[in-house]
Amino acid sequence: MSNNTKVTIITIGDELLIGQVIDTNSAWMAQELNKLGMLVIKRIAVGDDWNSIWKALDNAATESNLILITGGLGPTADDITKPLLCKYFAGKLVVNEKVLIHITDIFERILKRPMIERNAKQAEVPDVCTVLHNSRGTAPGMLFEKEGKLFISMPGVPHEMKGIMTDVVLPMLPQKFAMAHVIHKTLLTEGIGESFLAERIKKWEEQLPAFIKLAYLPNYGLVRLRLTATGNDKQLLQKTIDTAFEKLSSQLTDVLVTTLDEPMESVVAKILKTKNKTLSTAESCTGGFIAHTITQHEGSSNYYKGSIISYANETKMQMLFVKENTLQQYGAVSEQTVIEMVQGVLQQINTDYAIAVSGIMGPGGGSIEKPIGTVWICAGNKKNYVTHQLKLRFHRKKNIEITCLQALNVLRKFLITEAD
Amino acid sequence: MSNNTKVTIITIGDELLIGQVIDTNSAWMAQELNKLGMLVIKRIAVGDDWNSIWKALDNAATESNLILITGGLGPTADDITKPLLCKYFAGKLVVNEKVLIHITDIFERILKRPMIERNAKQAEVPDVCTVLHNSRGTAPGMLFEKEGKLFISMPGVPHEMKGIMTDVVLPMLPQKFAMAHVIHKTLLTEGIGESFLAERIKKWEEQLPAFIKLAYLPNYGLVRLRLTATGNDKQLLQKTIDTAFEKLSSQLTDVLVTTLDEPMESVVAKILKTKNKTLSTAESCTGGFIAHTITQHEGSSNYYKGSIISYANETKMQMLFVKENTLQQYGAVSEQTVIEMVQGVLQQINTDYAIAVSGIMGPGGGSIEKPIGTVWICAGNKKNYVTHQLKLRFHRKKNIEITCLQALNVLRKFLITEAD
Repeated sequence: MSNNTKVTIITIGDELLIGQVIDTNSAWMAQELNKLGMLVIKRIAVGDDWNSIWKALDNAATESNLILITGGLGPTADDITKPLLCKYFAGKLVVNEKVLIHITDIFERILKRPMIERNAKQAEVPDVCTVLHNSRGTAPGMLFEKEGKLFISMPGVPHEMKGIMTDVVLPMLPQKFAMAHVIHKTLLTEGIGESFLAERIKKWEEQLPAFIKLAYLPNYGLVRLRLTATGNDKQLLQKTIDTAFEKLSSQLTDVLVTTLDEPMESVVAKILKTKNKTLSTAESCTGGFIAHTITQHEGSSNYYKGSIISYANETKMQMLFVKENTLQQYGAVSEQTVIEMVQGVLQQINTDYAIAVSGIMGPGGGSIEKPIGTVWICAGNKKNYVTHQLKLRFHRKKNIEITCLQALNVLRKFLITEAD
Repeated sequence: MSNNTKVTIITIGDELLIGQVIDTNSAWMAQELNKLGMLVIKRIAVGDDWNSIWKALDNAATESNLILITGGLGPTADDITKPLLCKYFAGKLVVNEKVLIHITDIFERILKRPMIERNAKQAEVPDVCTVLHNSRGTAPGMLFEKEGKLFISMPGVPHEMKGIMTDVVLPMLPQKFAMAHVIHKTLLTEGIGESFLAERIKKWEEQLPAFIKLAYLPNYGLVRLRLTATGNDKQLLQKTIDTAFEKLSSQLTDVLVTTLDEPMESVVAKILKTKNKTLSTAESCTGGFIAHTITQHEGSSNYYKGSIISYANETKMQMLFVKENTLQQYGAVSEQTVIEMVQGVLQQINTDYAIAVSGIMGPGGGSIEKPIGTVWICAGNKKNYVTHQLKLRFHRKKNIEITCLQALNVLRKFLITEAD
């Protein structure tokens, strides 16, 4: 790696060590640093414990030039990070007037409740730090420099950390560090296992130059391949990675979903937008997860009209016009039912295309003929449709996620293969 | 801490350092270890890099008795963990016949495709390790012992790691280590800020014995309080934490949601089940997230019948009988609209109670009268309802999550205050 800046991320908080909170901060920070060409070499999570935090700082300083710290800055007694940083960098706590005004303003204007001493104390910062403005909360960010290394402490609340990173830290970094360039290129495949894929592109992989790394990211029957080029000559990097990526894609046309770093639902969204067509969904076992997956993206209302979530048989009949006879003869989890669900929702919500799913997600509800993990998917329009059966063997949450991903993939294949 | 067993979790993989994957494994492992009374003192994430992994192992060994390692065991070239562990523990790679039979079986019986050499290589393990059976995949777990410390390496695929942990590792640990007891008790409050809560329970907190720790876990206007007692005398721990918890709860009755470690939707579910009543939802801006939040839990079909997700105005009119006049006069995001949505879905899906939400989640769609973050919530039955307005100031994803949580809370309050 020709990148000189090594980053360590330290996250602080007992909640991270007992598993009550999943750390999403580190991933976000790593992504943003990556865009600047900075590589995270290590992430450490420690508890609200003086010695552990101190030791983590010492260790990070020996390995990294930039140390990003989140958490432990709240107003309550279990947060010890600020006094610790104060001692670590040999400063003393003083009230920062600007921060105090900001906190007072948040309480008066936004929270509309009186400020108490505990909140005012958040305006105290070590006199040896540079304050980083937290536009989204009361706990300020703090920057320390020691022996050429930068230490930046931010609150653990994701929304606030992201604000400080975006407003202050990320714009500042290129002035502080010599940056190497990092370029990623990513493609997504479906219908081929990781090992088979590896076998298929073996020769291509052997010819990759040392400054380009390949990673396999398998997920539910889909495999994402990521190329990463790192170095100082940006033009050379771009040219080499483009050529390698082009060669790779051309070998995988039959299993290729996208050559962009985008999720399945965005691939489907693009096809629908290009065709200027609309979509609705009828969900049983996924219980709204497909609708949520689609609508989590801004602009989805341009092609997505809505969903009928039928968690009861009577809802399937009343709202989706599934025949009582169908439910009795084939059951709610059957090819026949999902076909009727697609036709029902197309009629009810009046869209060009629809997806329907019905299945048994577990842990209960399975039988010998239809064990847990049995799922039927249908995608189509008023004239044509395709169906697909899954036999999943995971837990409820994962079964729901895979069903959603596969249902979107079934629609994607229907859309790209149908005659216009 | 009177617990003698210190655990370090090491996660391996470049995807963790560039932020492409969010680490959920560590949280799950920490939770499970906690139930056994074992405390994780540190979590480290490193890339697929020989020196970094080696150093992380060295460091972990100086601080911990048990080192759990996940990731880096896949069949592709970017996975270097197995050869590294082999060298670290001075062994050599040999084919393990049992593992080979298991892998062959998975390919023949489940994947139904031919096995290639790359897969067979997964049956090679260091001769100095004990193989831990991976019932859910091809890469075996491996246990090493060195100077009284235990090192356990598992695949990074969450489903497979969980299988090995549950089947082999967790049952084995009590035989290998002297266990201290850890007891957690948790309660959830709403409508009171972290600082105010801290002020209110200050005296109570000061009287806590040293072996009980208090943590604040704020989340979207709700604050979870967690008490943790650690020690060897289980009876004493239980008695002391029960008394302290009782005192705490009795001080917070007006803001208390639950005294169990359960999410808001489970609190609502229990009330509905007790009353033997049913629920439906009508979602606009949350796009299925409320339905998903409810149906992610097994058994939700006992009280939850379904949802109409109306992402278009015409769907609100056709499916939820919102009057055209209402939409024109007040807009889709209005108190009037969510009231009509509740009545519409109650009629369509025929349930006792319903929730409706409509709002502007961003980043687009705001106006001066209705800025981004404006949300209307209604909860009620055919006779009565309550409405609630939110003014959120976050990003799309978080706005959706808070709206869901608050909508469930609005229903919860309606349910517990209504006359039966």
